[in-house]
Amino acid sequence: MPVDPQKAMAATMAASTSTWSRDQVILYHRGLGAGFEKPTDPAELQYTYERELKVLPSFGVIPTFGAMGGLAGLPGIDINFMMVLHGEQDLEIHRPIPVAATVTNQPRIAGVYDKGKAALIIIEVDTSLESGEKLFTNRFSIFARGEGGFGGDPGPKPGNAAPERAPDAVVETRTFPQQALLYRLSGDKNPLHADPEFAKLAGFDVPILHGLCSYGIVCKAAVDALLGGDTGRVARYQARFAGVFFPGETMVTSMWQDGDRILLSARSKEREAAVISNGAITVRA
Amino acid sequence: MPVDPQKAMAATMAASTSTWSRDQVILYHRGLGAGFEKPTDPAELQYTYERELKVLPSFGVIPTFGAMGGLAGLPGIDINFMMVLHGEQDLEIHRPIPVAATVTNQPRIAGVYDKGKAALIIIEVDTSLESGEKLFTNRFSIFARGEGGFGGDPGPKPGNAAPERAPDAVVETRTFPQQALLYRLSGDKNPLHADPEFAKLAGFDVPILHGLCSYGIVCKAAVDALLGGDTGRVARYQARFAGVFFPGETMVTSMWQDGDRILLSARSKEREAAVISNGAITVRA
Repeated sequence: MPVDPQKAMAATMAASTSTWSRDQVILYHRGLGAGFEKPTDPAELQYTYERELKVLPSFGVIPTFGAMGGLAGLPGIDINFMMVLHGEQDLEIHRPIPVAATVTNQPRIAGVYDKGKAALIIIEVDTSLESGEKLFTNRFSIFARGEGGFGGDPGPKPGNAAPERAPDAVVETRTFPQQALLYRLSGDKNPLHADPEFAKLAGFDVPILHGLCSYGIVCKAAVDALLGGDTGRVARYQARFAGVFFPGETMVTSMWQDGDRILLSARSKEREAAVISNGAITVRA
Repeated sequence: MPVDPQKAMAATMAASTSTWSRDQVILYHRGLGAGFEKPTDPAELQYTYERELKVLPSFGVIPTFGAMGGLAGLPGIDINFMMVLHGEQDLEIHRPIPVAATVTNQPRIAGVYDKGKAALIIIEVDTSLESGEKLFTNRFSIFARGEGGFGGDPGPKPGNAAPERAPDAVVETRTFPQQALLYRLSGDKNPLHADPEFAKLAGFDVPILHGLCSYGIVCKAAVDALLGGDTGRVARYQARFAGVFFPGETMVTSMWQDGDRILLSARSKEREAAVISNGAITVRA
């Protein structure tokens, strides 16, 4: 059996350590486009300059990004890695993310669901500071196409649907044609985001933006528009990758206040195509 | 005596080691604006993507940049560091710069000249590969204003004057308002290039671009326009910093063929003001 939930969830995945400094944080923010439009705006400088530097909560995906590679060779996970899609991201932030840190990432398989056409594999990664305190928890939802139908639990349905009513805020974020080439320096070197020939082989006219870059762009839009730029107020950020985004397009992020949550969706303005759906930020009181 | 040439030239400066990988090379090229205009152009991708990555010769200033800080506390150099200007850069490339390396930098004071109003201090840094082979030699010309008049040798006059005749090639390089915020991630964290308040204190409306960023922009313009993009053909690159450049302006680089040399000057198109003068690339046969 290509996917064996019990075996996969019992498997041990190797821990890893990651270190970052202010430069990595700034580079990450620059990869999201921070400071592109208004480089000398004090609010943007808090993302791009080390004095009073803050850390967008979505940075929490960066040190743990490599965990997705840990699927390869794992007992119970015998799948075609060419058929894998990163479908959703769920990030819980337990304490403010420091501008510099060394952390330990401990991944595990938290769930394997049967979606019919695909198997859905949840990789959960707990990231802890050197003190042992838990900093954040990532859940990467990986769809292994062609590996469903094994008779397993279909798992939870997607939540955080956008309301029918008009959004409470809409933010347009202009991106730049060269943005993927910058974002990838934060760690995701998939040539799909850089190499025109590779992108053509995958069916795209030009390299596409990283899904987790869109994830960060949308996070920044919400933090700036509805949380007064206070990055520490994000307790959790969930999103589903609904479609591709091309560097240079404009990201339109729609937001709805919903109790202690901000519901989110985002689309490409130029193509009127969904990019992020079922998004939600849980706001810390 | 604030400046004592004999004492300074006899002083020992600490060696340092530097390490870089493809990411640092790409980040440096991105800081010069490579890939900004044509992100998917194969010629630009050789500067911004790790496959077939090449290294602009001006990257040679990056691992040794810290040497200028070595002046502080050096015997024979008792100067006001607020009055110091980086006036010229001279870089000799002894062998092709690898995309990744660990090197040792050995600085020394190679000359102290009396320019009347200023003392001119030459810091020479030899950079060697782990094999011991010499990779490149930088000479940083530092003007210590107010420290001249000590009765010393005035030193050589600036060479590489631009000819009177029309240039053989002129290249316009558009830069971006946020470019200094990217270039500084290659190591020069002077707030003059990032912090609007600090820039105002220094007399500028907005943060100015790093002189060594202009130096790299001009190098790239010449390599692309006259050397067919062959970064390995630069044996030496000398330039004088003639004036400030503001991120977002257009750099106009004028070039003259002169035997085995390319003479260079560069100005801001918008302000018609000199940025680089007395520039020369010596072309390897």
